[in-house]
Amino acid sequence: MSPIQLSQRARQTPPSPIRRLAHLATAAKAQGTRVYHLNIGQPDIKSPAEFIEGVRLYRDEVVAYESSEGNKRLREEWAGYVDRTLGLNLAPENFLITTGASEALVFVFMTCCDPGDEILIFDPTYANYIGFAAISGVKLVSILTKLEDNFALPSCEEIVAKISPRTRGILLCSPNNPTGTVYSRAELELLLEICNERNIFLIVDETYREIVYDGLSPLSIFHLDPRSERVIVVDSLSKRFSLCGARIGCLITSNQDVLAKTLNQAQARLAVSSIDQFAAAHMLSTIGPDYVEGIRCEYEARRDVLFDALEKIPEVVAQKPKGAFYTVVRLPVDDTDAFAAFLLSDFCCDGETVFVAPASGFYMTNSLGRNKIRLASVLERDALVKAAGLLEKGLKAYAAKR
Amino acid sequence: MSPIQLSQRARQTPPSPIRRLAHLATAAKAQGTRVYHLNIGQPDIKSPAEFIEGVRLYRDEVVAYESSEGNKRLREEWAGYVDRTLGLNLAPENFLITTGASEALVFVFMTCCDPGDEILIFDPTYANYIGFAAISGVKLVSILTKLEDNFALPSCEEIVAKISPRTRGILLCSPNNPTGTVYSRAELELLLEICNERNIFLIVDETYREIVYDGLSPLSIFHLDPRSERVIVVDSLSKRFSLCGARIGCLITSNQDVLAKTLNQAQARLAVSSIDQFAAAHMLSTIGPDYVEGIRCEYEARRDVLFDALEKIPEVVAQKPKGAFYTVVRLPVDDTDAFAAFLLSDFCCDGETVFVAPASGFYMTNSLGRNKIRLASVLERDALVKAAGLLEKGLKAYAAKR
Repeated sequence: MSPIQLSQRARQTPPSPIRRLAHLATAAKAQGTRVYHLNIGQPDIKSPAEFIEGVRLYRDEVVAYESSEGNKRLREEWAGYVDRTLGLNLAPENFLITTGASEALVFVFMTCCDPGDEILIFDPTYANYIGFAAISGVKLVSILTKLEDNFALPSCEEIVAKISPRTRGILLCSPNNPTGTVYSRAELELLLEICNERNIFLIVDETYREIVYDGLSPLSIFHLDPRSERVIVVDSLSKRFSLCGARIGCLITSNQDVLAKTLNQAQARLAVSSIDQFAAAHMLSTIGPDYVEGIRCEYEARRDVLFDALEKIPEVVAQKPKGAFYTVVRLPVDDTDAFAAFLLSDFCCDGETVFVAPASGFYMTNSLGRNKIRLASVLERDALVKAAGLLEKGLKAYAAKR
Repeated sequence: MSPIQLSQRARQTPPSPIRRLAHLATAAKAQGTRVYHLNIGQPDIKSPAEFIEGVRLYRDEVVAYESSEGNKRLREEWAGYVDRTLGLNLAPENFLITTGASEALVFVFMTCCDPGDEILIFDPTYANYIGFAAISGVKLVSILTKLEDNFALPSCEEIVAKISPRTRGILLCSPNNPTGTVYSRAELELLLEICNERNIFLIVDETYREIVYDGLSPLSIFHLDPRSERVIVVDSLSKRFSLCGARIGCLITSNQDVLAKTLNQAQARLAVSSIDQFAAAHMLSTIGPDYVEGIRCEYEARRDVLFDALEKIPEVVAQKPKGAFYTVVRLPVDDTDAFAAFLLSDFCCDGETVFVAPASGFYMTNSLGRNKIRLASVLERDALVKAAGLLEKGLKAYAAKR
């Protein structure tokens, strides 16, 4: 009998471009090589003491289900945090707590789209959006942004030209993963205007909202219209509080229909981790502004250090990102998948190498990413300089080999 | 402009039948009424000290992402637990850790089925399967099991008659939620034979595996064939360790293709809670067999008490369940949705009432559940007797009102 077949959507869900070379890194480490990880958005910065304290304070004798919409106190504290940091008065009832921003995004895709429906995204894009689309049967329609423009949004005409009768929304990651681009108020206004005019959703992933540089202030799409029926924000504690493993995200919207129908899906999966939610609520109720500001400053300093180092590498083209902690750079190679694998498997300098994420997985049109990589500034400054040096040496060794 | 439309699948995802009347319970409590919750499988039994200890022992300064397939130690410990309790030697690599059994089930639906594909289930069924099917576009094809047969599986012919070219698998919850039925080895063998013959998946939700009564031993589908390419087991720590809020489940299979393609989906959602996984691994490495045996005994005693009490209520038809901690009983009313709402909103006896789950939400053919409810034995024995008494009085009051 022939082997049992899997679904087409399972076969089409791509492996993570960030994680798919992980086995090569594991093998390199097993041989004693030190690997600098610039491939993954896992910061090395200590999580807040207030969160760890929250974990210790958890006292329930029965680790019971939380409500499907999320811990009441966490929703209140998160709304309070948004009020403190953004001056936005959003109701806790408009927050649905999710297992990371990831689950919020899957919910949004499911709630807004039927299979075959379309969502506009900007290419390059956060790779996992492509995975969520494959799972949910949503067709992502990509609009190209360019390295030489610092990945700014294209013109209104170029965006509108991609809208079809099946378009259900526009998804923007702002500040952007993978490019580090921070969109201007005018760019957000343009998107909101288009979505209002066409009656489609504007979904904004604000995971990196507070991580902006050069004197910029955090800007939420809610600053433009806190009550829009068409706006859905996806948020997460993972990055600004260095809590990736806590898996606490949320979906925020004033659209009561979206909240109600998403809650039905949330009920099917029952609830988010009770301990993570308890600790997060405790943290948000006790933490001051210094922690996030400290993270922001550190990433800004790292951005400077990494950008300076990259600029010195011959034939590497980089733009100075304005936020998040990523950057997409062009390398003088024609296949960064092969090059990234080479760095892990066939290159080693004084017992060290560097792990970079090939950009092909961040492009809907994979080939456009073939000569680019994404770097994450998730290491200390000295380590970033070392890693950039390894990248330079690796490029030379790769060129010599060919 | 007309309000913005949601997807058809969002509109079709039903609210949880267990949770949808929760607001009435909240309102009743706000008026000072004590509500006995028999509606939800949230045990009142203390979680293991070993888990709480694990939470306290978590020491990582950066709460970092776990690997997408799950914490290595947790997978090893879970395999060890399965070996100890079932005498089955499964490889840790065959375990994929998920956010509860819920996420494992969504993954399985996505991996095995494209939209429009079919999975056979037995009616009544765990209500959330219906939610997962709505989200994933899977068509659940129901095979009726009957209260008067203690919800045993029907004949081979009746099952095979439901298989179509689009059937991708059979999903069984064993021991069963909502009926408490424990399937015999012969029944499992029959399903495995059918699946082997038709080359379709056999998906078994073994969340309640250890909770079996009357001298029965826990039986896994892996006892019949630990290496089958067609068998996928979904498991969870929630019930046998009273850890519903810890959201730790897993998918277990020898099918490497299923594991690989499900891992791609798992990578898109990044990882499961690090602290929950750490604490669960610590618990499984230190806990003895007494905890689960204690839970099993307690539920057996509760089953006896609740069944005795139900038997005494005129015109209530109940079967003695052999496992899990649920039972589906027939009431002398024609609409248990209305009756359950009545109990919460219009009935109160000495300041108390009872919350039951209408069975309509557990039936693909809703109307078949109209005269039935699901009860969960998640309260202490005295409380169960009181709750059954309230049910009896509520039935009288409901009859008198009409």
